[in-house]
Amino acid sequence: ENFFNVYDLEPMAQKVIPKGAFGYIASGAGDTFTLRENIRSFDHKLIVPHVLMNVENPDTSIEFDGDKLTSPIMLAPVAAHKLAHVDGEVKSAQAVHDYNTIYTISSYSTVDLPPVTEALQGTPEWFQFYFSKDDGINRHIMDRVKEQGIKAIVLTTDATVGGNRETDARNGYVFPVGMPIVEDYLPNGAGKTMDFVYKSAKQKLSPRDVEFIASYSGLPVYVKGPQSADDVERSLDAGASGIWVTNHGGRQLDGGPAAFDSLQEVAKAVNKRVPIVFDSGVRRGQHVFKALASGADLVAIGRPVMYGLAAGGRTGVKQVFDKLTSELEMVMQLAGTQTIADVKNFELRDNPY
Amino acid sequence: ENFFNVYDLEPMAQKVIPKGAFGYIASGAGDTFTLRENIRSFDHKLIVPHVLMNVENPDTSIEFDGDKLTSPIMLAPVAAHKLAHVDGEVKSAQAVHDYNTIYTISSYSTVDLPPVTEALQGTPEWFQFYFSKDDGINRHIMDRVKEQGIKAIVLTTDATVGGNRETDARNGYVFPVGMPIVEDYLPNGAGKTMDFVYKSAKQKLSPRDVEFIASYSGLPVYVKGPQSADDVERSLDAGASGIWVTNHGGRQLDGGPAAFDSLQEVAKAVNKRVPIVFDSGVRRGQHVFKALASGADLVAIGRPVMYGLAAGGRTGVKQVFDKLTSELEMVMQLAGTQTIADVKNFELRDNPY
Amino acid sequence: ENFFNVYDLEPMAQKVIPKGAFGYIASGAGDTFTLRENIRSFDHKLIVPHVLMNVENPDTSIEFDGDKLTSPIMLAPVAAHKLAHVDGEVKSAQAVHDYNTIYTISSYSTVDLPPVTEALQGTPEWFQFYFSKDDGINRHIMDRVKEQGIKAIVLTTDATVGGNRETDARNGYVFPVGMPIVEDYLPNGAGKTMDFVYKSAKQKLSPRDVEFIASYSGLPVYVKGPQSADDVERSLDAGASGIWVTNHGGRQLDGGPAAFDSLQEVAKAVNKRVPIVFDSGVRRGQHVFKALASGADLVAIGRPVMYGLAAGGRTGVKQVFDKLTSELEMVMQLAGTQTIADVKNFELRDNPY
Amino acid sequence: ENFFNVYDLEPMAQKVIPKGAFGYIASGAGDTFTLRENIRSFDHKLIVPHVLMNVENPDTSIEFDGDKLTSPIMLAPVAAHKLAHVDGEVKSAQAVHDYNTIYTISSYSTVDLPPVTEALQGTPEWFQFYFSKDDGINRHIMDRVKEQGIKAIVLTTDATVGGNRETDARNGYVFPVGMPIVEDYLPNGAGKTMDFVYKSAKQKLSPRDVEFIASYSGLPVYVKGPQSADDVERSLDAGASGIWVTNHGGRQLDGGPAAFDSLQEVAKAVNKRVPIVFDSGVRRGQHVFKALASGADLVAIGRPVMYGLAAGGRTGVKQVFDKLTSELEMVMQLAGTQTIADVKNFELRDNPY
Ligand SMILES: Cc1cc2nc3c(=O)[nH]c(=O)nc-3n(C[C@H](O)[C@H](O)[C@H](O)COP(=O)(O)O)c2cc1C
Ligand SMILES: Cc1cc2nc3c(=O)[nH]c(=O)nc-3n(C[C@H](O)[C@H](O)[C@H](O)COP(=O)(O)O)c2cc1C
Ligand SMILES: Cc1cc2nc3c(=O)[nH]c(=O)nc-3n(C[C@H](O)[C@H](O)[C@H](O)COP(=O)(O)O)c2cc1C
Ligand SMILES: Cc1cc2nc3c(=O)[nH]c(=O)nc-3n(C[C@H](O)[C@H](O)[C@H](O)COP(=O)(O)O)c2cc1C
Repeated sequence: ENFFNVYDLEPMAQKVIPKGAFGYIASGAGDTFTLRENIRSFDHKLIVPHVLMNVENPDTSIEFDGDKLTSPIMLAPVAAHKLAHVDGEVKSAQAVHDYNTIYTISSYSTVDLPPVTEALQGTPEWFQFYFSKDDGINRHIMDRVKEQGIKAIVLTTDATVGGNRETDARNGYVFPVGMPIVEDYLPNGAGKTMDFVYKSAKQKLSPRDVEFIASYSGLPVYVKGPQSADDVERSLDAGASGIWVTNHGGRQLDGGPAAFDSLQEVAKAVNKRVPIVFDSGVRRGQHVFKALASGADLVAIGRPVMYGLAAGGRTGVKQVFDKLTSELEMVMQLAGTQTIADVKNFELRDNPY
Repeated sequence: ENFFNVYDLEPMAQKVIPKGAFGYIASGAGDTFTLRENIRSFDHKLIVPHVLMNVENPDTSIEFDGDKLTSPIMLAPVAAHKLAHVDGEVKSAQAVHDYNTIYTISSYSTVDLPPVTEALQGTPEWFQFYFSKDDGINRHIMDRVKEQGIKAIVLTTDATVGGNRETDARNGYVFPVGMPIVEDYLPNGAGKTMDFVYKSAKQKLSPRDVEFIASYSGLPVYVKGPQSADDVERSLDAGASGIWVTNHGGRQLDGGPAAFDSLQEVAKAVNKRVPIVFDSGVRRGQHVFKALASGADLVAIGRPVMYGLAAGGRTGVKQVFDKLTSELEMVMQLAGTQTIADVKNFELRDNPY
Repeated sequence: ENFFNVYDLEPMAQKVIPKGAFGYIASGAGDTFTLRENIRSFDHKLIVPHVLMNVENPDTSIEFDGDKLTSPIMLAPVAAHKLAHVDGEVKSAQAVHDYNTIYTISSYSTVDLPPVTEALQGTPEWFQFYFSKDDGINRHIMDRVKEQGIKAIVLTTDATVGGNRETDARNGYVFPVGMPIVEDYLPNGAGKTMDFVYKSAKQKLSPRDVEFIASYSGLPVYVKGPQSADDVERSLDAGASGIWVTNHGGRQLDGGPAAFDSLQEVAKAVNKRVPIVFDSGVRRGQHVFKALASGADLVAIGRPVMYGLAAGGRTGVKQVFDKLTSELEMVMQLAGTQTIADVKNFELRDNPY
Repeated sequence: ENFFNVYDLEPMAQKVIPKGAFGYIASGAGDTFTLRENIRSFDHKLIVPHVLMNVENPDTSIEFDGDKLTSPIMLAPVAAHKLAHVDGEVKSAQAVHDYNTIYTISSYSTVDLPPVTEALQGTPEWFQFYFSKDDGINRHIMDRVKEQGIKAIVLTTDATVGGNRETDARNGYVFPVGMPIVEDYLPNGAGKTMDFVYKSAKQKLSPRDVEFIASYSGLPVYVKGPQSADDVERSLDAGASGIWVTNHGGRQLDGGPAAFDSLQEVAKAVNKRVPIVFDSGVRRGQHVFKALASGADLVAIGRPVMYGLAAGGRTGVKQVFDKLTSELEMVMQLAGTQTIADVKNFELRDNPY
């Protein structure tokens, strides 16, 4: 089946994913106010195109941390790819390798670390950390992460407890598969609710945890969660090497701002001291463009990858990245920009309406 | 039947409450603009979560006026609980005892004072006063109130006349039950319209009435109705011990502001001189959070309790409080707060969209 | 049949008025943006109720120009009452007499001046003037107007050409009845389109016309149309005795402001030098309240009267005024005001959302 | 069949144009946000009518560049009129002659230059240029253009690549007809996709191209595309003789501003140094009025002409211009203006809601 934009993939995926799992992937917290604002908020900033500019050879590629990537579009950590495809993370990793960008493996991956790294064949990999209450286990996980040559650790801080996912509650949803990476603190994950899963992890995170991961692993730590200047400072003071602006795709706290609206404030606070990753609600090339022009260095996608994986496996995921890239390229040209550096210097117009 | 949030209870209650009584409970005044704004207005303020904060042991409990309460969520005065359940206020009082918070009994309670106080078993009780035109009757009512050990009197000032409840008019609704507490000035309440009921009470309230109640009863008086700085001053000057910000659940004046929007101004005016109670439109833990962060000390609920009472009696009411509490707890953790004191110090972000 | 608010009357009237005539009455110009904004705009200002105020004896009555009126709610000039009732203006005049307020007779009345004046039995009457191109005719009309003891002349200035009434065009609507008052310049009005009617009148109005009417008739002249400070000055300089803020019920220029939004600016410009009449979109007591609190001295209604006339004749029109009056009374009490003077001093809150 | 406003023509046209071609004409880029904002944005500015003004003889005519035109409403360049009518541009040119305004022929005209010029019979003609990569071809095209006595060249700069037209992609739309004017660089246009067409043209436009056209052709060059002060300066510096504010009817970059919103900024930047043409979303006389009052000297229409052409051929196109003109005339009178100069001096009111 053909798709013409990333939205098209959601109903396609819905046909092949069982109801409970689809609900878990697609829905958000509470009244889904924040979920809906995530997409709507991109209209708060407008791209005023610049004409008579050199745009013949648009180039979406970037160099990041020594790697040449096809574009700044990367994979956000998403639990349990097996919900979307029987081979789970292996297929999405192959696709990310095909496309050539950063892959973030979730602690709740349904495939263990080594086969994912192998599928990536050298494509840069990051590890998203859901902490154990037991530091021995945390050290053991980090040892394994380093063994894989993983390049950065992402500490998710906005999920200290599971969000109020009513769709899951209504569906009586439980995880149908286990999570090998965190098996030491969460054995037999299959059959567990999200709440149970989150409760197994350490909820009480503090700046000291950032320091601990940074110093034990020696890897750059990205703090995933800050949406305000305060949190940026606390994270950087604790030794973070990067800030990941997100609201977890509207899955955690409902009644909070769209992540794109927070990005404006965070970027000002970071002031180019460290790289910024942005996610939540990205469905269009113009969204990527607006995020970059608002201060993001990398733009991550979550649900679209799961939908592509369900609808078309390795090819499907690759096509999601390709589609966003070609849309981005078109927007770049129409906006009068030719490189990602141009985009990052582009000034958006506020939409007062 | 199961419910997943407080909204779910409304249709459940609608099935068991007769049409006229349900209309009386659920609907609002005029074009229901103010009623609808009550809920919508919570989106005017946003919770920007703070990460890397200590949130492991969230505690919703507070101490208020010498009592330790499970949370700052309390019961607003609601007339005629028998509309929702054959045992009326007795059941809701038992539930409030089970949960442990403040119970406000309405002058238009369909159960007399003593059995309600008994059902509360020492749980703090307040009395909402609809004044008689006859001060002898008022004194007699206050004597009885004090006999029950009631801790405060709430003077409702925004119902000097019944609101324009068109649903009631269309349904030809009359009260099917009498109101024992005010029997002296409103005998045979059963069969009467709301308009008749309101007209029996004293409409011409003045600061002197606040003084009179305060001095005669010796109890703290909460003025229920101020939505502006002016009214705060007039109330405090008259001897009020607390301000209750409300628009009566959108049942009185249509075309006025959402109570939550007024709370911002009132809190500034009160400036912590006396406690603030807030109600109107609270349906979510995030609403409670936002009200507390905007200056409320206690947050009251009206309709949800009637729906819980209809759908599940004593257990139903208890579950309403429990559901809001667990939502509040989750929001507190996700926002990076651990105590109600933290919540009250939390700064919300204006939503400019 | 029963009605519970003024909106209810529209579908009731639609059942008894032929399609073409109903379309003429109900619809507006162009995309009906301005028509819809007229009602919606009342939400731009909010009534923050004041509590603990003396409200026991609300009094909507006013004295205006030596007459004691039941309320500041009056009748706007509306053409062709016979579209709504076979006896036309006679019935509406009787009703206005019953209620006791100002009646404005339109130049396009379908009943001649004397029977209307007679039906009013001394109730104050104003005459709305659609000018002839022939000043002899204009003098003759004014002579007749003065003979009736009419107290003021309203010069309509916003209908120099008929608005873009597409509903009329689609319905192929023509006036089914003639207009006796203007027979001298518009004989055989029956069978004519609105456009034809407007074209028969003098389109080129100027400040000199105001002067001419004022000096020839010796009556106070209300200029119906100014929505800006400029137009207020031009009207007053020309000798106007009052300003009538309106957008003709959204029937003339589409794409302009709601009349209520313009009232704010006009009131500031007039600065109490002359009385202000306001109309367009008034359907609720709270609308009357908000208009008075925004600077209007009199609030006129158009369509509601036609609907009442169609649905219930003399009684129907009376009930429209009664309904708005009882709503106004209720709003006054709930807002903490007792007299129209209180209402006019009441400060509304801006609605920033 | 009858039509009462320009919107009516769209469904009429849809009945006679094949689905693919209709989709190409009617739809826009991406999520059609910008397309929808184009029309909605006219509500951002309000016409406050001025009364007691001389309006008896409204005159929409203007003199432009030595020509007396019926109104400032002109034809925007629209590709492939044969999609709407078998005789294509010949019929629209005859209609524009009948009406008497400026005709802009598109490079992608489906009729060659000479028959169009002939059909215009001396009515002013402009040529919209889609550049070739080969300057020899460009010179040859310009030679032909000058031969026709064409009075200006419009350089379209906002289509350096085709917009993201998903409707076309879903319909598998290809151009059914060839484009004789650009045959030298785009032979056999029939059967090609829009993307292919755009790729055949030169995408890399620069200020030098403006200079080249101006100096080689000796004709005034209008740059079609600037929406910001920057782009105005760059265009004028390069020798542009006029600025054409547009977003290409929402067909190119989605996520950008409504063209009418950009007009405000552009007009300020241009500051009357050169003429401004405006298009995108004009469907009403009031839109024309608002564009002129915001700084436009000429107002162009695109889709409406195609719909008129499909629904009624030469007469249909003429009627589109006539309808907008009579609406404009009516708005002018109701607003208190009599000439286009008055309109251009008219101050609109901001709509803060
Ligand atoms: C099904 C699903 C599972 C997720 N699991 C994780 C996770 O394990 N760890 C994490 O940090 N974020 C997780 N996220 C959040 C994503 O990293 C990302 O923030 C979010 O999906 C971005 O929003 P989007 O889906 O609108 O692109 C998950 C999101 C989804 C949709
Ligand atoms: C059915 C019903 C009856 C009420 N009766 C009273 C009452 O007797 N006295 C009073 O002060 N408020 C009364 N209220 C208002 C409540 O105290 C409270 O202000 C309102 O319900 C809060 O809004 P909510 O229903 O959205 O929570 C009543 C509300 C309802 C819904
Ligand atoms: C059917 C109809 C006929 C009208 N005829 C006249 C008229 O003859 N002269 C005039 O000045 N205004 C006329 N008006 C406008 C009214 O005076 C008044 O401005 C308008 O009705 C107020 O808006 P509303 O209908 O929302 O109350 C007419 C309005 C309607 C609805
Ligand atoms: C079917 C169609 C074809 C178009 N072709 C061209 C073109 O060849 N060259 C150009 O500069 N603009 C082209 N445009 C854009 C128009 O010149 C104009 O900017 C746009 O139609 C204005 O918006 P409107 O359709 O809302 O009036 C085209 C527009 C449409 C609808």
